Amino acid sequence: MRLVVPVSGSDPKTRLSSVLRPDERREFTEAMLADVLDALETAGHSPRVVATAPVACDAPVTVDDRGLDSLVNDLLAETDGELAVVMADLPLLTADAVARLFAPDADVVLAPGLGGGTNAFVSRHPDFRVDYHGASIRDHRRVARDVGAAVAEVDSRLLATDVDEPGDLAEVLLHSDGAAADWLRDAGFELAVDEGRVTVDRP
Amino acid sequence: MRLVVPVSGSDPKTRLSSVLRPDERREFTEAMLADVLDALETAGHSPRVVATAPVACDAPVTVDDRGLDSLVNDLLAETDGELAVVMADLPLLTADAVARLFAPDADVVLAPGLGGGTNAFVSRHPDFRVDYHGASIRDHRRVARDVGAAVAEVDSRLLATDVDEPGDLAEVLLHSDGAAADWLRDAGFELAVDEGRVTVDRP
Repeated sequence: MRLVVPVSGSDPKTRLSSVLRPDERREFTEAMLADVLDALETAGHSPRVVATAPVACDAPVTVDDRGLDSLVNDLLAETDGELAVVMADLPLLTADAVARLFAPDADVVLAPGLGGGTNAFVSRHPDFRVDYHGASIRDHRRVARDVGAAVAEVDSRLLATDVDEPGDLAEVLLHSDGAAADWLRDAGFELAVDEGRVTVDRP
Repeated sequence: MRLVVPVSGSDPKTRLSSVLRPDERREFTEAMLADVLDALETAGHSPRVVATAPVACDAPVTVDDRGLDSLVNDLLAETDGELAVVMADLPLLTADAVARLFAPDADVVLAPGLGGGTNAFVSRHPDFRVDYHGASIRDHRRVARDVGAAVAEVDSRLLATDVDEPGDLAEVLLHSDGAAADWLRDAGFELAVDEGRVTVDRP
């Protein structure tokens, strides 16, 4: 089964603009991608990266400026629906979590992200298609049901934790010692602990 | 093994004050507690609730105004460290997620919450103790290591999703049809979908 990791190479992670400069956002994006590729490869997969602009990583990269929906739906059509897609901004990902994504014997396996996204899927159904806008996990459940696919969802915090906003950076520092966590620490980020949820500071 | 669900019965969920009145926060707390108890009982457990003030639920309730750390550490001492604690604000919890919490053959099993908390644990070690302040998951990893306990962490989004802040309510509406989700819908909450993460509105 083909396994694709889409990533924005041009102006990634704009919602981190309040804490990271453009060049830093690109570096941090590549660090998260390295963590994702490492988890996938450790789990025995051979991922390919599809990026909107060149990115540095240890996997084959295709530069393709199609939007995410067009890209993934074209790939689903090309592969007769035998496709796995894992997002590039999941720096907590481990080989065990990857194995759990591929384990269910279902036509479509969905990994919900926090806030309604779909952070990864495995499709084994010819008619499954994606729509990443809005609360995509709801749309993907509906699409899978409408085409008659048996659906499973994987209950994984590590797959659910995509990093989009400054508040998400705490999860990386709390739970990872991978490339993205190293990058944050080198850039001066540290955990800020008071009442309520832990956040980050960059003193 | 004794299984305890601690809950604040007096003035719960103060960080939801911007969207819920005090009586609504108590009702919503009881709805989340009902979801948690349902998942635990479906998984074959017999949880006991320990509340700081009387709460309505379908499990035995003890009213106890000790702080959370004192309460849990006294229970750990009484039970020689054979204790499970599951927080009451996990409305996405399912019997499968509960089974995964109890599955690892480890002295201490930790379920991290979003933002550095510890949403559930299973202890089978006489010297494990808790400290829920700050980034408790880090402290609990350290405590377990310091007492020589073998530690496992359960990778579960459903166990990780505690509801403390208005932004967390979207997770309930996205992923649950339990008592807490029903309560939110009856109270007029609905998903608000635009760019970025899904949030809630109460029009």
